[in-house]
Amino acid sequence: MMKNFSVAVLLFPDFETLDVMGPLEMLGWRENPYELVMVGETDAPVKSAQGQRICVDTTINDARQFDILLVPGGRGTRVEVDNPLLLRWIARQAPEASYVTSVCTGSALLARAGVLNGRRATSNKNAFDWVRAQGREVDWVYRARWIEDDRFFTSSGVSAGMDMTLALIARTAGDAIAEDTARGTEYIWNRDPNHDPFARD
Amino acid sequence: MMKNFSVAVLLFPDFETLDVMGPLEMLGWRENPYELVMVGETDAPVKSAQGQRICVDTTINDARQFDILLVPGGRGTRVEVDNPLLLRWIARQAPEASYVTSVCTGSALLARAGVLNGRRATSNKNAFDWVRAQGREVDWVYRARWIEDDRFFTSSGVSAGMDMTLALIARTAGDAIAEDTARGTEYIWNRDPNHDPFARD
Repeated sequence: MMKNFSVAVLLFPDFETLDVMGPLEMLGWRENPYELVMVGETDAPVKSAQGQRICVDTTINDARQFDILLVPGGRGTRVEVDNPLLLRWIARQAPEASYVTSVCTGSALLARAGVLNGRRATSNKNAFDWVRAQGREVDWVYRARWIEDDRFFTSSGVSAGMDMTLALIARTAGDAIAEDTARGTEYIWNRDPNHDPFARD
Repeated sequence: MMKNFSVAVLLFPDFETLDVMGPLEMLGWRENPYELVMVGETDAPVKSAQGQRICVDTTINDARQFDILLVPGGRGTRVEVDNPLLLRWIARQAPEASYVTSVCTGSALLARAGVLNGRRATSNKNAFDWVRAQGREVDWVYRARWIEDDRFFTSSGVSAGMDMTLALIARTAGDAIAEDTARGTEYIWNRDPNHDPFARD
């Protein structure tokens, strides 16, 4: 049996549903070697931007170090960029995590926590100017489905998180498992990180 | 403001995460005219096949009639095909619902509830023989990303639910809103219900 990677999924009010659940579907497919842990600021269920309430498994006060961080976007990020508790959790976890990932405007939270300084990163096309303003020392790449810079994986808007996650699975568990996951979930995988049909010219 | 459609999302243990959350992302995008209601057998949170616990808004004992039913798949369907309480809820809601939809092996539950008899329907490619056996009077279509038969929309495996849901949005709220939803969520929409890359020859 392969090593299990622990994955901390950061939940906050008005997170975007698919930013979280697309990656979780892929990571959690069948026997894939990831332990998925929902992390909230408190132990109350967290309501997504689409209104579903998700239970958390632990809180940001848990001292445990995770192998992989997943930070979603959604309109809630507009509030959370000013939440020192969440940013401190990211800043504390990121240095020792094997991989730090974000979907959509989740990269704004990574940027504000300071962990993307000097890194290439991307984000949602509709919120790009706002995200860029959250991290002046980040090398923002507008046209990209996702960006891999060493152990930092950041994706473009919402659905792009699934393409990025399959690339993360390929990196951490091998190509065969990534292929099996895409086939099993009948997901038409965009394998090319540079193919970004939502970037404007 | 357009009419609001109430959408009942049936949750049961070991439902497949993306079967539910892909459609909810699309239906719940921004100002889309859908009220999303999580329905469980009891009022306890329901655990998905990927392990997340989702809170329910109401139970199958609620007498309210919904406009749209969404029935997901997942390994939990292997148990729920023998759950008379869930099947009775489907059989009671379906005749008066404007649309009855399923993702993946959710069509096995619709079939066992008897509501697909004489209808064309599809399902996941890896579980097709089992699903077919759940409804001998259903006209099962193997090669299809999704099937629309009048007010019945059934999709192929997991990710196909998002393509189907965008078609449902186009039907109920108009093409422009479906296009805006796909663009906003940066979703590469497979618009052709006959394009099924996961069917084997």
